[in-house]
Amino acid sequence: MRVFSKNQLQRYPIYLKFFKELQAEGTENISSPKIARALGYSEEQIRKDLQAVSDSAGRPKKGRSVDKLIDNIESFLGYRGKTEAFLLGTGHLGAALLNYPGFQEMGLSITEGFDADIGKIGKTVGSKSVLDIRDLPTEMAKRHCRIVVLTVPASVAQKVADFAIGCGALGIWNFTPAHINVPDGVVIENVNLASSLAVLNHRLNEKMAKRH
Amino acid sequence: MRVFSKNQLQRYPIYLKFFKELQAEGTENISSPKIARALGYSEEQIRKDLQAVSDSAGRPKKGRSVDKLIDNIESFLGYRGKTEAFLLGTGHLGAALLNYPGFQEMGLSITEGFDADIGKIGKTVGSKSVLDIRDLPTEMAKRHCRIVVLTVPASVAQKVADFAIGCGALGIWNFTPAHINVPDGVVIENVNLASSLAVLNHRLNEKMAKRH
Repeated sequence: MRVFSKNQLQRYPIYLKFFKELQAEGTENISSPKIARALGYSEEQIRKDLQAVSDSAGRPKKGRSVDKLIDNIESFLGYRGKTEAFLLGTGHLGAALLNYPGFQEMGLSITEGFDADIGKIGKTVGSKSVLDIRDLPTEMAKRHCRIVVLTVPASVAQKVADFAIGCGALGIWNFTPAHINVPDGVVIENVNLASSLAVLNHRLNEKMAKRH
Repeated sequence: MRVFSKNQLQRYPIYLKFFKELQAEGTENISSPKIARALGYSEEQIRKDLQAVSDSAGRPKKGRSVDKLIDNIESFLGYRGKTEAFLLGTGHLGAALLNYPGFQEMGLSITEGFDADIGKIGKTVGSKSVLDIRDLPTEMAKRHCRIVVLTVPASVAQKVADFAIGCGALGIWNFTPAHINVPDGVVIENVNLASSLAVLNHRLNEKMAKRH
């Protein structure tokens, strides 16, 4: 099995977005140098990335077919299939993600939210139902769901993650700022807004310091 | 000026979270080996990271003061100050971020939302007002705001980013899947949910393949 680095995997949705823009404009072929200029990656990296998910090379003069590139990347990313996920914790961020239409395009369907708050259980958030977190074991078994989106308060994040893993979760998409320990065989992917903001703030301060 | 890598900057909020948990438990001192075991970084990396933001070294036997570590990191990350930001695009994700209480702790105050939708302008989302995007130039000048949170549809993301930069924005926190080009002197930080999901899905498929 080919090994993909995290950075490389993160680039495919960005390529896809760009190729879809080209497709919408009616562009049929694209060369690596042009992709390099638009996205700021090196030509070598682009060739390597695209070759890794496609069955044919581009032609030196014409470049690669935009339609085929889109097809290759969408297949690779699983956008053509449908993966179901449950969301745990229907607070501000959880409610937004539960109803975020963009996930459908990525082949992800967050079908239900779960919460421990009796005031939320049995209600709906947008178009999605909120179930009792205590029903997670039966629901996960019934639906063969393997991915949970974690949006509970940070203070209970590890406890809820452990519970979900006990129910059979193999992938945890962690939106809490908590550091979560998972056993071997379980995948955790963190979206850490605090870490992202730390980078933005620091880079901004560097720029400001240079101006003065 | 000391140079911090992106990965290093991203680790500070994770350290901070861990040290705050220790503080809440009443732990007064912590050694690098213990931090290493809890967070899964190497001891050398931890020592380097903490030394970069503190004025004193830990004592070999006792370790470092948890209170002092929290103080050092919070100062470094700017959590003690208050940075104001505007949010552009008050759709599902935008509305959630506009009212996300976690940002206050990070020293970020998203004061208002802006939108082009006449049905939203003049209304409130949670506790925040939605202003007309056409008023961005005057509001940015008046409030000396330098950071915008970008949550508009991907199709208009570049256009709105260009407009905000023209109004004086120096930092763009991009939550859209669009690739945004910015001039020198402007900082862009991307929170790309599609890229994060791509990593989760791929790692999960790898694990599943190993099981079979």
